[in-house]
Amino acid sequence: MKPRITTLTIGVDDLERSLAFYRDGLGFQTNGIIGTEFKGDETHPSGAAVMFELQNGLILALYSRTDLAKDAKQVVGASSPTEFSIGHFVQSKEEVDALLKQAKAAGAIVTKEPHDRPWGIYSGYFQDPDGHLWEIIWNPAWKIKE
Amino acid sequence: MKPRITTLTIGVDDLERSLAFYRDGLGFQTNGIIGTEFKGDETHPSGAAVMFELQNGLILALYSRTDLAKDAKQVVGASSPTEFSIGHFVQSKEEVDALLKQAKAAGAIVTKEPHDRPWGIYSGYFQDPDGHLWEIIWNPAWKIKE
Repeated sequence: MKPRITTLTIGVDDLERSLAFYRDGLGFQTNGIIGTEFKGDETHPSGAAVMFELQNGLILALYSRTDLAKDAKQVVGASSPTEFSIGHFVQSKEEVDALLKQAKAAGAIVTKEPHDRPWGIYSGYFQDPDGHLWEIIWNPAWKIKE
Repeated sequence: MKPRITTLTIGVDDLERSLAFYRDGLGFQTNGIIGTEFKGDETHPSGAAVMFELQNGLILALYSRTDLAKDAKQVVGASSPTEFSIGHFVQSKEEVDALLKQAKAAGAIVTKEPHDRPWGIYSGYFQDPDGHLWEIIWNPAWKIKE
């Protein structure tokens, strides 16, 4: 198996709400909700989703938890923030602080104010409207390719 | 905020077990468990983690759920597979089938055998040892950059 992630799909309770947060609040570009022509039913998932193209063609997708459950043959689980965290590296401490402020202004909950960690990074966390964690990180030992 | 994900950290119950699954079962390369010199305590997270470098410098990290909870100031949640799904695109239907077989042989649960979806892809899902979903996808409309 090649070491590759093509898409990261996050389960959400309300596509419109999450679209507004990521597009209008964080500033990610998207064509909005696509796939609504695939209606789904009791057992088949709807195709409605939102996609954001990130660096190098990586895709961040928003998809309803109920549809993801049907698509993957799972039961819808409760929100559980410790399942994963998305790390977003920036160039300076100031940028960490600024992005957490921006996320907060967009309605995010800042769960941990930024601070220095023993392993040499400076970071803080926010949660999106579904409780999904983003860690904004400045790592002086890590050169970001812009 | 730049549309960028630098790392995807997934919360696991047992670092050794997940390391074995991803390294030995799926074949992802890694230096193994790092950061063990940062011990943590009741309130501070340990630094023990596993990192896999994926395409274009993207990092997949394994971190214990309890440490992630401490790091992000959260309560440890139950396993909840509908929180997210990782999409891995391949070049053919045959490759989808083969990868799901490989994952199963490595101990994964195949939750949904691959099949054609109304939106033009052929895909199936497996779960890693912590219930995290991977969708293996062939999308004839999508040219993968190797």
